[in-house]
Amino acid sequence: MLAKNWPLPGKIAYGGDYNPEQWPREVWDEDVALMREAGVNFVSVGIFSWGLLETAEGVYDFAWLDELLDLLHAHGIAVDLATPSVSPPAWFFAAYPQARAVDKNGVPMGFGSRGMASHASAEYREAIVRMADQLARRYGQHPAVVLWHVHNEYGVPVAEDFSDAAVASWQSWLRARYGTLEALNAAWGTAFWGQHYAQWEHVVAPAATPTTVNPAMKLDWGRFTDDQLRECFRLEREAIRAHAEQPVTTNFMAHQSWNTDLWKWAREVDIVSDDHYLWSPDPEAHVALALSADLTRSVAGGRPWMLMEHSTSAVNWQGHNIAKRPGEMQRNALTHLGRGADAILFFQWRASRSGAEKFHSAMLPHAGPTSRVFREVTELGGRLAQLGELQGSRVSADVAVLYDWESLWAQDLEWRPSDELQFRERMRTYYERLWRDGVPVDFAHPGDDLSGYRLVVAPASYLLTQAHAENLTHYVSCGGTLLVSCFAAAVDEHDAVHPGGFGAPLQDALGVTVEEYLPIRTGEQVAVSFDAAELETSVWAEDLVLSGAEVCGTYRGGPADGAPAITRHQHGEGAGWYVSTALGLEALAPVFRAVYDEAGLAADGPVPGTYPDGFEVMTRHGEDAAYTIAVNHREEPVALKARGTDLFTQRPVDGELTIAAGGTAVVRLDNTHDR
Amino acid sequence: MLAKNWPLPGKIAYGGDYNPEQWPREVWDEDVALMREAGVNFVSVGIFSWGLLETAEGVYDFAWLDELLDLLHAHGIAVDLATPSVSPPAWFFAAYPQARAVDKNGVPMGFGSRGMASHASAEYREAIVRMADQLARRYGQHPAVVLWHVHNEYGVPVAEDFSDAAVASWQSWLRARYGTLEALNAAWGTAFWGQHYAQWEHVVAPAATPTTVNPAMKLDWGRFTDDQLRECFRLEREAIRAHAEQPVTTNFMAHQSWNTDLWKWAREVDIVSDDHYLWSPDPEAHVALALSADLTRSVAGGRPWMLMEHSTSAVNWQGHNIAKRPGEMQRNALTHLGRGADAILFFQWRASRSGAEKFHSAMLPHAGPTSRVFREVTELGGRLAQLGELQGSRVSADVAVLYDWESLWAQDLEWRPSDELQFRERMRTYYERLWRDGVPVDFAHPGDDLSGYRLVVAPASYLLTQAHAENLTHYVSCGGTLLVSCFAAAVDEHDAVHPGGFGAPLQDALGVTVEEYLPIRTGEQVAVSFDAAELETSVWAEDLVLSGAEVCGTYRGGPADGAPAITRHQHGEGAGWYVSTALGLEALAPVFRAVYDEAGLAADGPVPGTYPDGFEVMTRHGEDAAYTIAVNHREEPVALKARGTDLFTQRPVDGELTIAAGGTAVVRLDNTHDR
Amino acid sequence: MLAKNWPLPGKIAYGGDYNPEQWPREVWDEDVALMREAGVNFVSVGIFSWGLLETAEGVYDFAWLDELLDLLHAHGIAVDLATPSVSPPAWFFAAYPQARAVDKNGVPMGFGSRGMASHASAEYREAIVRMADQLARRYGQHPAVVLWHVHNEYGVPVAEDFSDAAVASWQSWLRARYGTLEALNAAWGTAFWGQHYAQWEHVVAPAATPTTVNPAMKLDWGRFTDDQLRECFRLEREAIRAHAEQPVTTNFMAHQSWNTDLWKWAREVDIVSDDHYLWSPDPEAHVALALSADLTRSVAGGRPWMLMEHSTSAVNWQGHNIAKRPGEMQRNALTHLGRGADAILFFQWRASRSGAEKFHSAMLPHAGPTSRVFREVTELGGRLAQLGELQGSRVSADVAVLYDWESLWAQDLEWRPSDELQFRERMRTYYERLWRDGVPVDFAHPGDDLSGYRLVVAPASYLLTQAHAENLTHYVSCGGTLLVSCFAAAVDEHDAVHPGGFGAPLQDALGVTVEEYLPIRTGEQVAVSFDAAELETSVWAEDLVLSGAEVCGTYRGGPADGAPAITRHQHGEGAGWYVSTALGLEALAPVFRAVYDEAGLAADGPVPGTYPDGFEVMTRHGEDAAYTIAVNHREEPVALKARGTDLFTQRPVDGELTIAAGGTAVVRLDNTHDR
Repeated sequence: MLAKNWPLPGKIAYGGDYNPEQWPREVWDEDVALMREAGVNFVSVGIFSWGLLETAEGVYDFAWLDELLDLLHAHGIAVDLATPSVSPPAWFFAAYPQARAVDKNGVPMGFGSRGMASHASAEYREAIVRMADQLARRYGQHPAVVLWHVHNEYGVPVAEDFSDAAVASWQSWLRARYGTLEALNAAWGTAFWGQHYAQWEHVVAPAATPTTVNPAMKLDWGRFTDDQLRECFRLEREAIRAHAEQPVTTNFMAHQSWNTDLWKWAREVDIVSDDHYLWSPDPEAHVALALSADLTRSVAGGRPWMLMEHSTSAVNWQGHNIAKRPGEMQRNALTHLGRGADAILFFQWRASRSGAEKFHSAMLPHAGPTSRVFREVTELGGRLAQLGELQGSRVSADVAVLYDWESLWAQDLEWRPSDELQFRERMRTYYERLWRDGVPVDFAHPGDDLSGYRLVVAPASYLLTQAHAENLTHYVSCGGTLLVSCFAAAVDEHDAVHPGGFGAPLQDALGVTVEEYLPIRTGEQVAVSFDAAELETSVWAEDLVLSGAEVCGTYRGGPADGAPAITRHQHGEGAGWYVSTALGLEALAPVFRAVYDEAGLAADGPVPGTYPDGFEVMTRHGEDAAYTIAVNHREEPVALKARGTDLFTQRPVDGELTIAAGGTAVVRLDNTHDR
Repeated sequence: MLAKNWPLPGKIAYGGDYNPEQWPREVWDEDVALMREAGVNFVSVGIFSWGLLETAEGVYDFAWLDELLDLLHAHGIAVDLATPSVSPPAWFFAAYPQARAVDKNGVPMGFGSRGMASHASAEYREAIVRMADQLARRYGQHPAVVLWHVHNEYGVPVAEDFSDAAVASWQSWLRARYGTLEALNAAWGTAFWGQHYAQWEHVVAPAATPTTVNPAMKLDWGRFTDDQLRECFRLEREAIRAHAEQPVTTNFMAHQSWNTDLWKWAREVDIVSDDHYLWSPDPEAHVALALSADLTRSVAGGRPWMLMEHSTSAVNWQGHNIAKRPGEMQRNALTHLGRGADAILFFQWRASRSGAEKFHSAMLPHAGPTSRVFREVTELGGRLAQLGELQGSRVSADVAVLYDWESLWAQDLEWRPSDELQFRERMRTYYERLWRDGVPVDFAHPGDDLSGYRLVVAPASYLLTQAHAENLTHYVSCGGTLLVSCFAAAVDEHDAVHPGGFGAPLQDALGVTVEEYLPIRTGEQVAVSFDAAELETSVWAEDLVLSGAEVCGTYRGGPADGAPAITRHQHGEGAGWYVSTALGLEALAPVFRAVYDEAGLAADGPVPGTYPDGFEVMTRHGEDAAYTIAVNHREEPVALKARGTDLFTQRPVDGELTIAAGGTAVVRLDNTHDR
Repeated sequence: MLAKNWPLPGKIAYGGDYNPEQWPREVWDEDVALMREAGVNFVSVGIFSWGLLETAEGVYDFAWLDELLDLLHAHGIAVDLATPSVSPPAWFFAAYPQARAVDKNGVPMGFGSRGMASHASAEYREAIVRMADQLARRYGQHPAVVLWHVHNEYGVPVAEDFSDAAVASWQSWLRARYGTLEALNAAWGTAFWGQHYAQWEHVVAPAATPTTVNPAMKLDWGRFTDDQLRECFRLEREAIRAHAEQPVTTNFMAHQSWNTDLWKWAREVDIVSDDHYLWSPDPEAHVALALSADLTRSVAGGRPWMLMEHSTSAVNWQGHNIAKRPGEMQRNALTHLGRGADAILFFQWRASRSGAEKFHSAMLPHAGPTSRVFREVTELGGRLAQLGELQGSRVSADVAVLYDWESLWAQDLEWRPSDELQFRERMRTYYERLWRDGVPVDFAHPGDDLSGYRLVVAPASYLLTQAHAENLTHYVSCGGTLLVSCFAAAVDEHDAVHPGGFGAPLQDALGVTVEEYLPIRTGEQVAVSFDAAELETSVWAEDLVLSGAEVCGTYRGGPADGAPAITRHQHGEGAGWYVSTALGLEALAPVFRAVYDEAGLAADGPVPGTYPDGFEVMTRHGEDAAYTIAVNHREEPVALKARGTDLFTQRPVDGELTIAAGGTAVVRLDNTHDR
């Protein structure tokens, strides 16, 4: 349910996490002055403040927070008030050592870091509800508070928990899910390796074992872990709603967290928010950024969302923490905005002198307000202030990419045919192909209504239920184009191989099943003949059994030499394409061109390949106008085709606007050019 | 003792593990029909069925197994009935949590995987004896049952165990081994690093320690661990023998398990059986297969053995699980057969839909009976049915390769001169040299009577007792040829350096000792001049002290530049060769040629190098005939020289038979060509 | 306090660890005879003998040690008598299992290795004091005993300890350090991530946590761990001093131990001693040896020190244990001597047949007295006997290199801008530049009086307190030359970023601060223009803000392209240089040449670059003469310029002495050439 209104209507929210408890009182005044200078209109407060708010069990000290909220309000800065449940104080764990999360070897997590509570612990749950209740009663009516920020990045750094409380909760969860032990034994296939359960209390959690654990158990354990976290979120949310009207959020980590099924989470929050950080080893990390933004917008159902955290420059927790170069922060921010974010926020306002993240960049770095970073922060604040009219406008797409956390969890289990074929790698490669072709995409769940899309792409649908396969088949039969990547529809919701063999549930849609998976030996030369092209491939091949599909690509070399590699199948009004090998970014290009043609994408949408590679163009549609957001990742200028008004300069754009190397632009389009 | 008769006289057993408890009853009927189609005459049943047979402590349900055995018997399929001791049920561990194996950090192993019981646990031992007793009483007279299969792959996945029961058992074992603490302190050299023991109950197991553990303790711990497993085997075997007449086996993993001294194990079973899987990263994995088969036959004393498990195509537990290509399964099976296997069995009959190994290939894959794999399975079944007359025939060899698990255990301990010089690598390289030269070999224990061999090769005899060294010396003095690789005879049975220095016990036989080991720096260019050749080498050199040997090879470069590298020593009627560096496969070729000449191998045996590399020719000798088994690993046809009858086609072979690329053949030789 | 006299006045001590308890009594007689043959005059005894001296709690057996000391004394061999506190016996841990060190996951360390006691344990402390007291009472007056050797290599293999006793001791230590919880919370920045402490007993140790631990806590934990070890040393030392007059030492591991702040340790011992082993992967390990020797001499305040352990040839605990080649042992020994060692000792006298280190070389190897190693040992013994007049002479240097273990500990904490920029790598590279240039150096603490040095080099001063920065600034203002490497003065003693930003405390001295750290992407091509040269660089760059410095080098390429890279700043009478990137050994050469000129090093000291690379020349100054020690690491002869007497040959040197490839020489200089 996304029922509540945007907290800053008509404005792009700008700011970040603000942790003034780390600084003397006199610094607060400097902070608010500099915030105004930088255009900050929104800060998140209190995320790690439990120990300062509840100084001993049931003993509260809200004076400093009262003063802080009043100060911010006086300066026109809206507050996203956090519950501090991610960091219970030292006294809590000293009183309730059993409330600590325990790792799979039975080691309870220690204090001195963050996020060590067992989400199954009754004592923890009682304590977080009590704290949320206190905060909501006190600040539910405070004029500064426009949003509630529950907890922080659920599932990071600890999600799995093998404490006694967690194991008891797991047994209850399974009983509720399966009803009978017969159902559980069947779902988990416990006949294999002699794992039959005859009593509920014998069911174990997947802790330390001599070798691989039952995969269906592990998949359920992933669902359970996610559910535990969400249960805690709901407890806090309800405690807040009892006394407060503002919307409630929690910050996701789309495509950077393994433990949260965001399709489910998005239904629980009033506003979707997301944290995103560039991954330094990736020289094209801005593609992953775009993926993350599209995924966040998609789980939010297309509604406005908040970029709750990103960084002004380097982070500190990677091996090499590469600083952003001049202009890069603005490009990153504009990509988020172009893909639907109505808030551009950072971790954090002022760099910490102490602690684990003192080398993390901030809006106000250690070097102070004269620094390059602060100058760019201020420039960006000014520019975003010019974009208030974009607030609430939407992004639309003709292409859906299927993304299912359950398939991610299942494919990442142990003992697959090849550990080189990975969900996230395939997702990124397929997404990047679309990104480079300039094709806007939504992400979708395989159970969603897909009828609005011309093309549906399934890069990593290893786990695909019979029902979801039928949904996809129906989509094709009604005229849709479906593109499926290898190792698809192998297993059902219990990680059990589908009856009929690999891929059987998609046989109608694709006209093909898989007799055997054929991982390719490292270093072996394998190609696929596709039209006139020879596409290099590696990692994975399959032995296909055609049942109606036509062969569009053929293996050259490798374990499937001479056999079909890429197929196309007409089914009803539509067509299903299957790519049985792990093609790389370049090799996918001609395949996608054929699929775009099939789907009629070029007909009335943006023509794939209009702009050069690395020139990122996005469109948002408001009630009164449409906007083109352009981000130039290239080292030379590019001419944007547009007609309208450059919102940064307020000058008219009459057909073309040159975007400097590394530059950005936002153009309000004339009505005749709204797409 | 291998006292019992072959369970299927005059037949090659064919089939595999059969786990019908994973499937509905109606599938069983399809199974037996397809088994008959495929030529299956033998299946292993019940390996993981404990929880379904003893549903609660002392409560049994044999109805389904009764029905299954009757069904198989009715269809003429013999049964290898397993005891399920590898997988105690969930109720067992719930009742006896102390019966779990514990890792070196004190973490007890959890349920949900397999093989977590402590073999030292009294409760476990009582439970397995009770179950074996029940099975033997009920099925000892069942006509389907022709063999008992105790447990499964002892030592995998858990062998070491630090539970309280294991530590108590360890102290008893040591007391029995050493008698006095003085003897233990001396054997372990506890004076080093202050490890003296003054009371038996102070003796610890080699659990978590700050740095390296006493190596003699670890070596004894390896012996103890092996003994514990074997003690459990004996308990089950005796429980069976009390009520049943059929032979008893357990499946070994020759050269793929670290924890079992198969020379000792083979004395305990009635029939030796072995599991073997190809290791995907090894492009020449069929050489390791041949090694494993020769090793299995050797520990069996040359008697017929069973290939209890191998795979029809890919396994699932490696990083990349490479599928077998058409024909490869048959080549693998024929190599096992050619090296003495009278049973060709698979894990498993029907691929599991669920569980950890659902991506493991099977005789009947997920893709069903129309699949390539099932067609090849059926073809192989038909061919093996034509080979019944080979059952009971033997393999003979003029060359023995020394293989001692105690030396493997000792060499793999920590803090050796170089961790690059490894037992298994040296064993494989020396074996592969012989394999490529087409020389049949047995493996032998260094304490065996070696007088029947022309050549004895010691690739990795780091641990060599004084008595075993005397055995080798005696062998040479009586006219044998001995070839010893580097780092030999360094330590005695307590991993203590031999008095007199490295290699001293072999000084008489080799005419050389080692003053200092000289590991070669990575990347350093070193060669050995040998006759006209310059042999590249790496990893290891030695500073030799000659005491009679002649120099056959000299170091060029490296830490021993200009000094002797390869020596030959006449001792009595024979000669001892010593190779003091880790020569590779190619570099070993001229050395072996010289040694073959010395041993007179070419005189009346197969001439090394008769066939091209990769054309594998084996011979079995029956009472009435001899058989040549040929396996062509090459990509072109090869002409086999033979005179007799092609058993697959029943056509005469008159001097030459062309074996297609990737093909196989079995020829019953005319009497004049029995070798 | 280094108050006591040298134990063997006028002699270079020669010998090693002697562990006769590993051998039968008759071997002892052979040992002392061979020791005399080899020139041994000093052995260390009893390091691991606790279990043989105290056979049960309070039950002593000194008879064998009495006999041993008498035997050694009778043969004129002085004894360094050890307390065996590093290895409590099995009975001790059986009686006091709580006295075991515990790892961060809560696993107590087991017996059977070495060094597992908790230094915080009251039972352990009581036991070591009792044993030291017994030894001192019995042997304090023994004429053989000239030195006490307390414990062995403190901190190896275990330093960190999470036992209950350690945690209690930690809380007391913190209370003493900080006085109030307010001070602790401020110092650790506990406001970050909600780590505030409200009670002392809630303060945890940095055991297993979900993610990174508070870095200031970890830094204090390093200090605490070091202090715990030193406290134990003091307890033993005082127990000895109560009954004995001989000096007391313990063997350090300069630059090879992480856990001991040797500036503090050196104040506690009467004589500094050090263990050093070559690191095999390092082809220039003799440079690390020289560094270690200079560092040891420096912590000893320039006084004579003992090389307590090194090896005659290979060690056994590395991956590849490279044996020393002929002459290498003597070169190593002479380098130690040339850098101030007045004792050349080995681990160990006779190679052990058993135990973890049987493959470690010894003075008397397994191959016995006819071996190359023993011959070279004997030769070295003879040569050192000719060098007695050097005993007590000193080394002097014009250059100081700053070395602070606190900075090492802090820089090695997690979550730095780049894990590729490391304290020890930078220290080695800067040191090696000076070594190759032939420039003698001392190491110094940043708080030391530096006025005696022409040049001070700070390769790795990440942690630099305000006071120490002022000390360096004062040094410059008084005319010194200071060369500072990148990432300097980032944090204070609490690992908190200095107010004013990175490098602020050195702003006066260097005329520059750092706005942002800019780690360089792996593989990116970056150079620095410096004078006419283009210096390649990698890993690290910085965004500098000049406040007076002149630019001497400019970035070409990379994240700081075109910006200042190397600066020079005149401050008062001196100059401060700053190198903001991680230049390699070659790239540093022209920078150092400029700095040598600035410091006037060539004016009256040794001219950098006089000798070819790899010809190592050292000078020691006695009261009556100076000595040049030359070590030729090159593969060709080099002519040493000297006038005096060759002490090995006793022949005059008249201007030049040719040192053979791999050779060494010691020349007593004529008075006119005393430098």
